[in-house]
Amino acid sequence: MGVRFGYQGMIDDDFVEMHHHSVSNILQRGGTILKSARSKDFRTAEGRKKAVENLRKHNIDAVVAIGGDGTFRGATELYDEYQIPFVGVPGTIDNDLYGTDETIGYDTALNTAMEAIDKIRDTADAHDRMFLVEVMGREAGFIALETGIATGAELILLPEAVKKIEFIKDSLKEVFKVQRRSSLVVVAEGDQTGGALNLAEKLQDDFGKYEMRVSVLGHLQRGGSPTSHDRVLASRLGSAAVEALLNGHYNVMAGVINDKNALTPMHKTWSEKKSINFELLELAKVIR
Amino acid sequence: MGVRFGYQGMIDDDFVEMHHHSVSNILQRGGTILKSARSKDFRTAEGRKKAVENLRKHNIDAVVAIGGDGTFRGATELYDEYQIPFVGVPGTIDNDLYGTDETIGYDTALNTAMEAIDKIRDTADAHDRMFLVEVMGREAGFIALETGIATGAELILLPEAVKKIEFIKDSLKEVFKVQRRSSLVVVAEGDQTGGALNLAEKLQDDFGKYEMRVSVLGHLQRGGSPTSHDRVLASRLGSAAVEALLNGHYNVMAGVINDKNALTPMHKTWSEKKSINFELLELAKVIR
Amino acid sequence: MGVRFGYQGMIDDDFVEMHHHSVSNILQRGGTILKSARSKDFRTAEGRKKAVENLRKHNIDAVVAIGGDGTFRGATELYDEYQIPFVGVPGTIDNDLYGTDETIGYDTALNTAMEAIDKIRDTADAHDRMFLVEVMGREAGFIALETGIATGAELILLPEAVKKIEFIKDSLKEVFKVQRRSSLVVVAEGDQTGGALNLAEKLQDDFGKYEMRVSVLGHLQRGGSPTSHDRVLASRLGSAAVEALLNGHYNVMAGVINDKNALTPMHKTWSEKKSINFELLELAKVIR
Amino acid sequence: MGVRFGYQGMIDDDFVEMHHHSVSNILQRGGTILKSARSKDFRTAEGRKKAVENLRKHNIDAVVAIGGDGTFRGATELYDEYQIPFVGVPGTIDNDLYGTDETIGYDTALNTAMEAIDKIRDTADAHDRMFLVEVMGREAGFIALETGIATGAELILLPEAVKKIEFIKDSLKEVFKVQRRSSLVVVAEGDQTGGALNLAEKLQDDFGKYEMRVSVLGHLQRGGSPTSHDRVLASRLGSAAVEALLNGHYNVMAGVINDKNALTPMHKTWSEKKSINFELLELAKVIR
Repeated sequence: MGVRFGYQGMIDDDFVEMHHHSVSNILQRGGTILKSARSKDFRTAEGRKKAVENLRKHNIDAVVAIGGDGTFRGATELYDEYQIPFVGVPGTIDNDLYGTDETIGYDTALNTAMEAIDKIRDTADAHDRMFLVEVMGREAGFIALETGIATGAELILLPEAVKKIEFIKDSLKEVFKVQRRSSLVVVAEGDQTGGALNLAEKLQDDFGKYEMRVSVLGHLQRGGSPTSHDRVLASRLGSAAVEALLNGHYNVMAGVINDKNALTPMHKTWSEKKSINFELLELAKVIR
Repeated sequence: MGVRFGYQGMIDDDFVEMHHHSVSNILQRGGTILKSARSKDFRTAEGRKKAVENLRKHNIDAVVAIGGDGTFRGATELYDEYQIPFVGVPGTIDNDLYGTDETIGYDTALNTAMEAIDKIRDTADAHDRMFLVEVMGREAGFIALETGIATGAELILLPEAVKKIEFIKDSLKEVFKVQRRSSLVVVAEGDQTGGALNLAEKLQDDFGKYEMRVSVLGHLQRGGSPTSHDRVLASRLGSAAVEALLNGHYNVMAGVINDKNALTPMHKTWSEKKSINFELLELAKVIR
Repeated sequence: MGVRFGYQGMIDDDFVEMHHHSVSNILQRGGTILKSARSKDFRTAEGRKKAVENLRKHNIDAVVAIGGDGTFRGATELYDEYQIPFVGVPGTIDNDLYGTDETIGYDTALNTAMEAIDKIRDTADAHDRMFLVEVMGREAGFIALETGIATGAELILLPEAVKKIEFIKDSLKEVFKVQRRSSLVVVAEGDQTGGALNLAEKLQDDFGKYEMRVSVLGHLQRGGSPTSHDRVLASRLGSAAVEALLNGHYNVMAGVINDKNALTPMHKTWSEKKSINFELLELAKVIR
Repeated sequence: MGVRFGYQGMIDDDFVEMHHHSVSNILQRGGTILKSARSKDFRTAEGRKKAVENLRKHNIDAVVAIGGDGTFRGATELYDEYQIPFVGVPGTIDNDLYGTDETIGYDTALNTAMEAIDKIRDTADAHDRMFLVEVMGREAGFIALETGIATGAELILLPEAVKKIEFIKDSLKEVFKVQRRSSLVVVAEGDQTGGALNLAEKLQDDFGKYEMRVSVLGHLQRGGSPTSHDRVLASRLGSAAVEALLNGHYNVMAGVINDKNALTPMHKTWSEKKSINFELLELAKVIR
């Protein structure tokens, strides 16, 4: 059985029977055939009770929950309150879940953001331009760090490595000094400057003579046909989640660590902090 | 000879010799190998005098000017003041030049904008969302109209067909009434609402319960590998421009009308108004 | 109502009710939700009788037939034998239907073939290589001509412009003489040399010292997300077909000629010959 | 300094000075700006002597060699015979080098092959079709295995897991039995059946009633704009190679193992066997 619209659909009894052919020809599509929603009702005890009643009505023994930390916290509540066996599958573009090297959707988001910035770069050969591009990542700079390197950004701003505005200005002045015609700054939305638009304002006084171009990539990073890496990861974790349930491993998340399947207790996926790769952060400096 | 950075390079003597192999393997690349710039100097009589001196120094008989109406006005000035033979080639993504069915870059921009909106759409199956996407087009709604149809937008806002905010609100209410979960509005940047961000504000009061997502596609529409259509058109018009010069047709723009090469007096390309296809505007209504 | 698997589905009663939402989120997908099939049964009188009985059973007044000349000949038979009102919509990547400037799918196939050849070109900077790429086009060279220009092919071989093998060899020798490291030949599958593999054999003796790489693009040209151009054309012709039926225009094909909707008697779409653009053929020579 | 056309260029003195700006705006391009060639001369003692003389003439202390096992064997010869310090960077789409989890180009090739197969799949909804797609991989099935999973292939044939033709036929008969309309087989070029064309012949007798479509993707897998993953990997390994040389680590390959930089003695990269992930092979069976 599939549950549409997440926990809200579990409460609203929006269940749909799924067969072998239900997933034919969906590998190459972005988005989700089960759709998604935020559920206020689920935050209430009545809501969760209704959800469990529906699971029982449909004779559902166990649930595979696909999502990020919100989804997993919900699963943990149902497990704690009603002992519903859950296994989590990390499906979020932000890659900020502990217990897996990469989350499903992250590699696709990286490539989508990179291709958008490539297109912006194509016009960057004109004189005296400054491109500020904001990518997703509220709490963590995974996307900004990798796409920054992948697009040869002159500066990458992350929540994990806060820079003073004076440092940012000095770095940019140096960039223009060594004869580059234009510069590209990649900013994570969660950076302390408050995103690309705020940053542009702060730079206005010192860099007013440059044409400033701000792009906020936004939701387009959430769509697009998945990459090979993401499809293989999703197939792998889906299979691992079912196996975990069959083997009686409940309230864990299925992940891949060093190319091996691994199970992590659900609560650790959000309580432990997954760090960006600081080797890459060093690399970004070297390349600049 | 190629002139880098447009009229500014003509003034600064930024000329580069070009050979057969100078253009090898560039067909598939976005941007321009000759780069571009805006030139304040060219607006002065001294600037233009310097430009012409440089042309003469390099024994240049005639110029092929690639660009939009700014480029063509500049060419016309040099032609009027110094009788430099010019032929224009329409290179602008906005498609707003009279004398050619399509400008070089327009088809690529359409597809780039469309693919970005497709990715936004991929996440549109969630409940109660409203996506406002701003595409390029300051004076004309060519891009908004075609990408709006191509992505199945519920509403398309163009400079050519001004809508009262009340009309916009009523249309959107209707859309949500007929059970669609989300709606997509494509807005030309030159629309009188002042772009997608302004529109979002105006809709806030009536549609606050919907999650509103605003995307401003911006400069990414100017890059990307050209489409087949644009490559063939560019090859065709480049060849037609040279032929025109050889045949003594000066101060005209080379274009394609109804799949035939056509020359149009330069000044007409901006003084005459090229209209969007109103059949398509009707079609957009029918489809909605 | 939709009929799945074409005339075979009409015979097998494979009808499906379609609503507004049946076509939601399909604009960006390649292939066809109604699927397709070749039907031997339809070539028999009994088969066609059964098809018409099913149309009547479902109270179907008129049919929009999407396809190429096979589809349209079938429609014409049903019209002649049973007076079933038909309007045709040109859906074929080959672009070889008279009565429309472009068929639906042609622009997508051009871009798909071009992108594949671009990737082959990326490796073409090595010494002494010859790439022979076969694209679709059994009777007509539309795809080969445009993708040949769009990818800067050194030679383009079309059914419409038969070349002696000696001419082909001489042209290629000239190419290698002017210092190019590699050469690219685009061949239409219907070219008289018998396709890229046969051509490679014929060149073996004279060009054995070059590494020869043959690619047969094949069916991948039939898929992929449609271009903006194709989506707008499809929306336009679908609407035009319905309008034609409402206005009592039967057994015609809806097409676009010089950016205006146009109806053409069905039989003319295959009996009249649509020609490639010979201006483009000249251009290909100039560019080489 | 850059050496163009590999060892052949080293012999022919085809050296080119490189600066900071020599690599500007190349991150997004497929192929190689230094070009490549096979060198017969290098296999002779005189050839290698000439190569070393040129290295000395240009005061080159150390070399970073980018390529596969042929490149690394050449480097080892120069190191053994003339003590030229070498560090290797794994640049090959085949992923068959020991000492790194992934080679540069592999992820791009995966996605390129996958996107091509996706397009073939788009037309797969017709009745009774069998698609045989051959991907690169002479000695190893890395590409076939991952793209097979990523495209939901019904059968994947690898050099590592030889199947009797009877097994292949039985598997395909089962596929068609469970009501699938079409089937997709992904074959590594090095599979013992001799590639997709040979396989098609062997299946002809038993599956003649199905329309068989063979695609040989060939060289297009070698091109295309690199993925984010490959760009980051390349930046990382380029930097690691320089660091290794500075630290006096010679005749090693720089790789990434479990997301950490790692050096491996050059000769081990080809003498040790890197295995495909057998967990993935199991997964492919489960999914089928």
